[in-house]
Amino acid sequence: MTATLLPLKGFPDVQAGDDLGELIDDALILNGLTLADGDVIAIAQKVVSKAEGRQVALATVTPTAEAEALAEETGKDPRLVTLILQESTTIVRKRPGAPGVIVVEHQRGWVHANAGIDQSNIQVEEGGASALLLPEDPDRSAAVLRDHLEARHGVRLGVLINDSFGRAWRVGTCGVALGAAGLTTLLDLRGQGDRYGRRLEVSVVGLADELAAAASVIMGQAAEGTPIVLLRGFPGVLGDGSAAQLVRPAAEDLFR
Amino acid sequence: MTATLLPLKGFPDVQAGDDLGELIDDALILNGLTLADGDVIAIAQKVVSKAEGRQVALATVTPTAEAEALAEETGKDPRLVTLILQESTTIVRKRPGAPGVIVVEHQRGWVHANAGIDQSNIQVEEGGASALLLPEDPDRSAAVLRDHLEARHGVRLGVLINDSFGRAWRVGTCGVALGAAGLTTLLDLRGQGDRYGRRLEVSVVGLADELAAAASVIMGQAAEGTPIVLLRGFPGVLGDGSAAQLVRPAAEDLFR
Repeated sequence: MTATLLPLKGFPDVQAGDDLGELIDDALILNGLTLADGDVIAIAQKVVSKAEGRQVALATVTPTAEAEALAEETGKDPRLVTLILQESTTIVRKRPGAPGVIVVEHQRGWVHANAGIDQSNIQVEEGGASALLLPEDPDRSAAVLRDHLEARHGVRLGVLINDSFGRAWRVGTCGVALGAAGLTTLLDLRGQGDRYGRRLEVSVVGLADELAAAASVIMGQAAEGTPIVLLRGFPGVLGDGSAAQLVRPAAEDLFR
Repeated sequence: MTATLLPLKGFPDVQAGDDLGELIDDALILNGLTLADGDVIAIAQKVVSKAEGRQVALATVTPTAEAEALAEETGKDPRLVTLILQESTTIVRKRPGAPGVIVVEHQRGWVHANAGIDQSNIQVEEGGASALLLPEDPDRSAAVLRDHLEARHGVRLGVLINDSFGRAWRVGTCGVALGAAGLTTLLDLRGQGDRYGRRLEVSVVGLADELAAAASVIMGQAAEGTPIVLLRGFPGVLGDGSAAQLVRPAAEDLFR
């Protein structure tokens, strides 16, 4: 029982409107891979956002007064801060500085820095710098890709859309599941006994986040350009969960 | 470039005083595996704690008055709460209930539930129930095991001691690196350009936590009993970091 992570080499630069499913099909062929039941395809959020046209040219953004003030306080571009505020419901924490920190609650419930808006890996075009917003509904994006891939390859699959989030009490980012389809995202062990028959205390595992973290090691974060990783042989990961289930409701959160 | 995770089958029940390095050697032979340069051995915290004799019979614990009150409030065993408080410097949050939640800052800086004290997977002995404390110094434990394994097998290795922590804003636990030796625990990408030459915004990756999460999927959390996983072919993970580096200092924490 060996689990493997296979990066898909030679994945092209993704443009708005590209059919990611077709690009993944092509990359599988290029890498000599055939999908099998139980495989999970992990996809970096950036390529999903790009394909879905979530790139925003900063030149087209008119900063709000609130964003101007927060940008001044945190040493950020006021147009970027305008987008961060548009994507969010609440500023959870901020730390003044240059650069400072803005931690928000995103409209979809994620608590993270800068509403997940990324200025890296964005081509600087004629119009100047662009920012990349998160996909509008990553669980839906994952479901669409899964439907395509299952139909094309005739197997049962999971699809995971990966992002990297900072953590409150730990240094460094960690891969998380932003979107998921066909996966057990939360593994509920309550009621299962352990090997001595005791009830388990820690009993709900964020399984899709653990898979996302595994894929993140392989994707790399910088110049490597391997946004698609095939996870094979991970036991018991297929299911019908969503990544939205991994978001702790604010009412249950002791730290907001 | 394929990364693999290989669970070591047939690992025995660990007792206080056992030599974990020898047990891992035996398990490698049993599983027909030979260690190679760059391999990482991930070990569940529980077996390290057991080998180091960190099991405490609850019958030997006299509850303090503070623990009695907190136990009442959170529906926990007052002897367990006494141990939780002994292991911790601060109660970060508590939520009354049955069972309630006690989030503490451990003496070693970890912010987590119940000071990481586990009542599951502990043999109930003649004297009654026992709790298992975390290893006293997991980075040191990892270093000792790495020295043993590198000397025995003549290769460069990483060793990781795994635990599962809850998260502030996300549901479910996720594997984290409690101890590490021979690994790049934090991967600092600052100064590296991305594929378009821009500076990366999110720039420090909690690499050892991502590896721990990957191993956690394979270890399982319940009855499977596979506390040792060999991680092979993960690129660029060896280094000289410690798991202590993954603990965010309280002074830099926006959420304490």
